[in-house]
Amino acid sequence: MLETKTEYDELLSAVGRRLQPNAIRKLTLLLGNKEVISLAAGAPSFETFPLEELAEISARVIRERGRFALQYGPTRGQSTLVEAVADILRSRSIEGCKPSEIVMTTGSQQGLDLISRVLLDPGDVALVELPSYIGGIIALHNAQAEMIGVRQDDGGLVISDLRERIDRTRSEGRRVKCIYTIPNFQNPSGVTLAAERRKQLVEIADEHDFMIVEDDAYFDLYFTEEASRLVPLAALRPDRVVYLGTFSKVLAPGLRTAWLRAPEKIAAKIELAKEGADLSSSVLDQAIVVEAIREGLIQRRLPQLRQFYEVRCRAMVDALARFAPAGSRWTNPQGGFFILMELAAHADATEMLPEAIDHGVAYVPGQPFFVDGSGANTLRLAYSKESPEAIADGVERMCRVFREF
Amino acid sequence: MLETKTEYDELLSAVGRRLQPNAIRKLTLLLGNKEVISLAAGAPSFETFPLEELAEISARVIRERGRFALQYGPTRGQSTLVEAVADILRSRSIEGCKPSEIVMTTGSQQGLDLISRVLLDPGDVALVELPSYIGGIIALHNAQAEMIGVRQDDGGLVISDLRERIDRTRSEGRRVKCIYTIPNFQNPSGVTLAAERRKQLVEIADEHDFMIVEDDAYFDLYFTEEASRLVPLAALRPDRVVYLGTFSKVLAPGLRTAWLRAPEKIAAKIELAKEGADLSSSVLDQAIVVEAIREGLIQRRLPQLRQFYEVRCRAMVDALARFAPAGSRWTNPQGGFFILMELAAHADATEMLPEAIDHGVAYVPGQPFFVDGSGANTLRLAYSKESPEAIADGVERMCRVFREF
Repeated sequence: MLETKTEYDELLSAVGRRLQPNAIRKLTLLLGNKEVISLAAGAPSFETFPLEELAEISARVIRERGRFALQYGPTRGQSTLVEAVADILRSRSIEGCKPSEIVMTTGSQQGLDLISRVLLDPGDVALVELPSYIGGIIALHNAQAEMIGVRQDDGGLVISDLRERIDRTRSEGRRVKCIYTIPNFQNPSGVTLAAERRKQLVEIADEHDFMIVEDDAYFDLYFTEEASRLVPLAALRPDRVVYLGTFSKVLAPGLRTAWLRAPEKIAAKIELAKEGADLSSSVLDQAIVVEAIREGLIQRRLPQLRQFYEVRCRAMVDALARFAPAGSRWTNPQGGFFILMELAAHADATEMLPEAIDHGVAYVPGQPFFVDGSGANTLRLAYSKESPEAIADGVERMCRVFREF
Repeated sequence: MLETKTEYDELLSAVGRRLQPNAIRKLTLLLGNKEVISLAAGAPSFETFPLEELAEISARVIRERGRFALQYGPTRGQSTLVEAVADILRSRSIEGCKPSEIVMTTGSQQGLDLISRVLLDPGDVALVELPSYIGGIIALHNAQAEMIGVRQDDGGLVISDLRERIDRTRSEGRRVKCIYTIPNFQNPSGVTLAAERRKQLVEIADEHDFMIVEDDAYFDLYFTEEASRLVPLAALRPDRVVYLGTFSKVLAPGLRTAWLRAPEKIAAKIELAKEGADLSSSVLDQAIVVEAIREGLIQRRLPQLRQFYEVRCRAMVDALARFAPAGSRWTNPQGGFFILMELAAHADATEMLPEAIDHGVAYVPGQPFFVDGSGANTLRLAYSKESPEAIADGVERMCRVFREF
């Protein structure tokens, strides 16, 4: 809840400054509880949480295995969970993963933080998509990386722009250390990296000797047959990729259980960094997730989850087609939670947000997702939280505000 | 379990090198499952975990509040838990804490990591006790601090040595940025900082303008009336101290729920660092701990926990008095989990460890706890895991090995 008017004002003013992810996140959390239609919160819907099953599993795990589930655990993660993750990787065409390549993390956010600390020295160049996930930007920022943005279009990263950025960096006598990418149903843009570009990206990484950090949080949540057949970059060139996956979107984010797979030597460094960072992630959360996997709870719910989000995506796209002001455009996701809307060039999504909230709808201004400071006329719309009816209503209200401005 | 002979050999060889905390921790975890009497594992006994109560609480929390307990939560922590921590701080004479001064962390290890990242730039000087907790040393190491050791005696930090280290640092044109201390029942030494020295320490910190990082993980687990009356450094000078507490020792470490209290501006920086580090700690763990506090589960078990560990401490001290080789000494804890044993000057605790394990008993060599590379003739003995009988048996076996060497 927005506890005071001051807090709200502070947040909005912070949102207006570039790269204030903390404020953005607070705003979305707070708005989640306010009496507005929230197209802001980028979290899975609580309606998808299997409460009864998880209540039963947690009690059983504590009763039967509490001696381990409540004790300190290995930094790398519970060995049975690590093995289950190796199976998941195999199902995604990432073959032959050894436990020594896998590290469990406190959400993928911790993976991004540890990877940034291990791969980068202060001042190193990291490429990121324009726009990109704010949590990834913060992690790179905290590692004091210099971030350079690469343009995206409806097929994801624009390869010619990627080459240009790399060449320009080289011409300055420096080199690219890594690229951070979300190839499937990107946060915040909703776009997906085309199959052909995936091959090109790993070839370029090879040619210029940099690592790819592949954040695949939404892998399972595809809406189309085509998207279901896309292969991770890690399957194409495992030695060039640190690959991140999570149980947050397909089970529950409050369990804070995610994983990464890296070449063995990098995984060993990440494990050491993680030991200093928190010894281990929640052992109980990991024990619950292991059981949920064993019982098939995650796997069997995937079809209904895909449908849940696809229906909402459809509702949003349809409402945008009806109500969006002339001159605006939006992406057409094949999965995930997000649509990026682009207003006419002169529009300022941050400036209009207070008015939108007064009209009972919230979104996230797009600018903080762009490391080059562009994107003032963009906004991120999440269809993950509200009902299809509320989404349509929210989009209508929002577009009315946009048209009046 | 020690899965392969190679793993075991690698670990022992790593233990022999200075500051290989990762190996030490793995060894203690692995030894916890081996058929040896473990005086190595520095974890609370699983016998102290209230399984039935926690099973019941977890199921209820998920059923009744799963919508929040399984969702993303605020970086700073669940607000009800933050308020409960403010009450705990008050009960420790740290008055008037505002929620904006408190951050929940994934174990105190994460607190140490975040504090190190926020307080220190690479090359900054941090003072640490000789010996000190390995996790604290790793966190400072990862922040690229230069660690300078300060001697301890039976009353904790030796103030004259502290002054000497500070003066020497100043004479080199540098200054001390912070000191990391565990004033109560220190890990690994078991010693407690005397009341008079607490006052001197905060005065010196004030005089030389550095921060105190006070790790008070064992606060509640005192064995003596005198120790129960000791006041945290944070109560004496809250503006000079970042204070860390945890539920790991008094409830269950697998829940990974700890907290820190810092001056407001530092807490704000820590919150930002934590957002990049993991967005938030396990929300379910926090929800379980809130309920455990509300129901009085933690508070009412403290007397029996104190007795549980005191009986084991007594068993170890008695056995040492009977079996220790001539020329050895050991500390006499007023609380906590640990005793530091010092053998004759020429002895090497690392060298003797494989022989001890072959005789069915394990300990942790002391050297990695000493940032100056000393302590080869010391070892850390934990009385937290085994029964009093096993402790007596283990000490006897161990001392037999020491005498034969």
